[in-house]
Amino acid sequence: MDISSLVQKNNTKIVFVILDGVGGLPINGKTELEAANKPNLDALARVSACGLHIPVYYGITPGSGPGHFGVFGYDPLQYEIGRGVLEALGLGIELKKTDVALRCNYATIKNGIIVDRRAGRIPTEKNIELTERLSNQIKEIDGVEIILKPGKEHRFCLVMRFPKVINENNAMVTDTDPQKERKPPAEPLALNEESKEVSEIAKKFIKKAEEILKNEERANYVLLRGFSALPHIPSFEEKYALKACSIAVYPMYRGITRLLGMETLPVEGDIKEEVEMLKKVYKDYDFIFVHIKKTDSFGEDGNFEGKIKKIEEFDSFLPEIISLNPDTVVITGDHSTPSLLKAHSWHPVPLLIKSPYVLGGTVNAFTERECLKGELGIIPATAIMPMVLANTLRLRKFGA
Amino acid sequence: MDISSLVQKNNTKIVFVILDGVGGLPINGKTELEAANKPNLDALARVSACGLHIPVYYGITPGSGPGHFGVFGYDPLQYEIGRGVLEALGLGIELKKTDVALRCNYATIKNGIIVDRRAGRIPTEKNIELTERLSNQIKEIDGVEIILKPGKEHRFCLVMRFPKVINENNAMVTDTDPQKERKPPAEPLALNEESKEVSEIAKKFIKKAEEILKNEERANYVLLRGFSALPHIPSFEEKYALKACSIAVYPMYRGITRLLGMETLPVEGDIKEEVEMLKKVYKDYDFIFVHIKKTDSFGEDGNFEGKIKKIEEFDSFLPEIISLNPDTVVITGDHSTPSLLKAHSWHPVPLLIKSPYVLGGTVNAFTERECLKGELGIIPATAIMPMVLANTLRLRKFGA
Repeated sequence: MDISSLVQKNNTKIVFVILDGVGGLPINGKTELEAANKPNLDALARVSACGLHIPVYYGITPGSGPGHFGVFGYDPLQYEIGRGVLEALGLGIELKKTDVALRCNYATIKNGIIVDRRAGRIPTEKNIELTERLSNQIKEIDGVEIILKPGKEHRFCLVMRFPKVINENNAMVTDTDPQKERKPPAEPLALNEESKEVSEIAKKFIKKAEEILKNEERANYVLLRGFSALPHIPSFEEKYALKACSIAVYPMYRGITRLLGMETLPVEGDIKEEVEMLKKVYKDYDFIFVHIKKTDSFGEDGNFEGKIKKIEEFDSFLPEIISLNPDTVVITGDHSTPSLLKAHSWHPVPLLIKSPYVLGGTVNAFTERECLKGELGIIPATAIMPMVLANTLRLRKFGA
Repeated sequence: MDISSLVQKNNTKIVFVILDGVGGLPINGKTELEAANKPNLDALARVSACGLHIPVYYGITPGSGPGHFGVFGYDPLQYEIGRGVLEALGLGIELKKTDVALRCNYATIKNGIIVDRRAGRIPTEKNIELTERLSNQIKEIDGVEIILKPGKEHRFCLVMRFPKVINENNAMVTDTDPQKERKPPAEPLALNEESKEVSEIAKKFIKKAEEILKNEERANYVLLRGFSALPHIPSFEEKYALKACSIAVYPMYRGITRLLGMETLPVEGDIKEEVEMLKKVYKDYDFIFVHIKKTDSFGEDGNFEGKIKKIEEFDSFLPEIISLNPDTVVITGDHSTPSLLKAHSWHPVPLLIKSPYVLGGTVNAFTERECLKGELGIIPATAIMPMVLANTLRLRKFGA
């Protein structure tokens, strides 16, 4: 349900921690959370409302975008972030409302046929060199600024910055990637009248890039995918009347939270630096989001021990967070990333909400199996924010 | 889902008890239900299907209307009771389908400006005197009967009884309360053509009342709010094929259950008198609703001990209810009212369903934390009635 009409302001503070991909699966009988020595987290869980959340839907493995949207109370099935936008955010490009973003590949073309969609996975250094060359030679097309940023290997990002506001209807353009080798590239096709300007610029960009890259052996062509504009999303301020900020080291998460209207604070380093920033800005915001990335990274690498260590490291900083005495503390993940799977997964994610208004006393530790005994049950991710607002007495009664 | 098409009749009996606001939060480690000595309730819970229900949605604190609608299987987001209607029900006015109900304030006006929206919270006795004076002098306006009833302090209720059936579309009129002092009152504004008759009568009522009250020092004006007609709601008989009655001491709950087509039986006193009534009418109904108010009242007062005592008092009458041998007994609340919060809250509410067709044996007591172990899990309130009908074998198989 839309709770916006029930929201009221007060002076409470919320600290909302995402341990990215924290949920896991057992290896030798124990999950990462079960194997970690984390006395502070477990003690907090014992006096908190615990449970697990389902990021999108049963069995659905979320990407980072949907994972975060869900826990912040934005239905990931309703609010989708375009691929191009997500790529741009991940590379740290600060998108504006005038932008169309695309994820692109360097590719190999021969006699009009794509023979390698990834240009033999050229080294990232080569990508950087080529993207700089394209940047220098294509600064604008028909009055539209062209912004390019290299990614890893063959991937790069293209942003078309228009002199006017762009919406999702202006970026309905089909991918040029033929998806299979030994096929010609597709034309970028505008799916409606409003997108024709974008498709025309895309065509011109492809032509210019081909000319500039023509002497390259492998990366002599570009494929464009995921045409997208910033989605129209009510901000945290509009939706929850919360002055919110985001403490995240990685560009992707800064970008996602900026989409939601959070102030994204500049922080480099890891947990230590993030907690320092939290302490520094604590008084200035109602809602402070702290994103801890490495739990997910170790999970993705299949590094069971690394993920445990990162959980333990967070645990050692938890007392500093608690000592700020926020009215409500939330600790959860945006999804599970079991080391066993070396990937994001669909498994429900442990969740803890601490406030003066919880039962508590139902779980012994912050783990997948213990959280099953918690008072929250297994809930959709989108139910977290209504409960967080309730626990800070920021929701008025519904009906008389 | 709408289960109406699956409903079948039989001779089973259902006793459905609401301990208003029964759910609580721990004070010194125990909730009201945990601290209460209630051997009968706990024994019943041990052989019942237990769980907790969420009245409206995660984090949402329901008023009495939505709280009861939910447990009776009417989605509170779909069926809303207007403020005026609820006020009238709370004051014991038996609304008809020809009525528009309003909640009103006595106010203080000076040179066309509202200087006190509550007329200095005049004593209730003064309110009674003034409302009687208005009643005597304004019996009808343009053929529409005017019914007035005093509430507490500055509040009173106005019902316009038309000679024709009125629906919600006829009562789309804006409040005249300017919400802030030092502003002139607003005009009652019809939001559609069908509501103009109501807004015209409202204007005339305000004018007449102003004339009658003009020599009052404080209560020299009236503000009108919450224009509303009875919502169109399928009755218990239509929805569930149940002949239902309601045993409630407080007018509000009689009114709500009358909206649902239950026969509201006259009873004064408290639990003892309600149980006597239950025994008296037991043979005459399929579904008997017993509403126990005081658990909520003590919760609202922050009276932890009082709420415990009321739970214990109910416990002492439980054997009399059980001895009637109903096919299904339901015991729950319409919402939680933790003494800690001195208010309704969003917390899931303990729920017990006893029938010959339950697992049982999963909980040790009827408490918030024990019910978490129950076979029902944490469910939406609207799931209760389908399960009650199922447990009395009143639902046919769905599909072949």
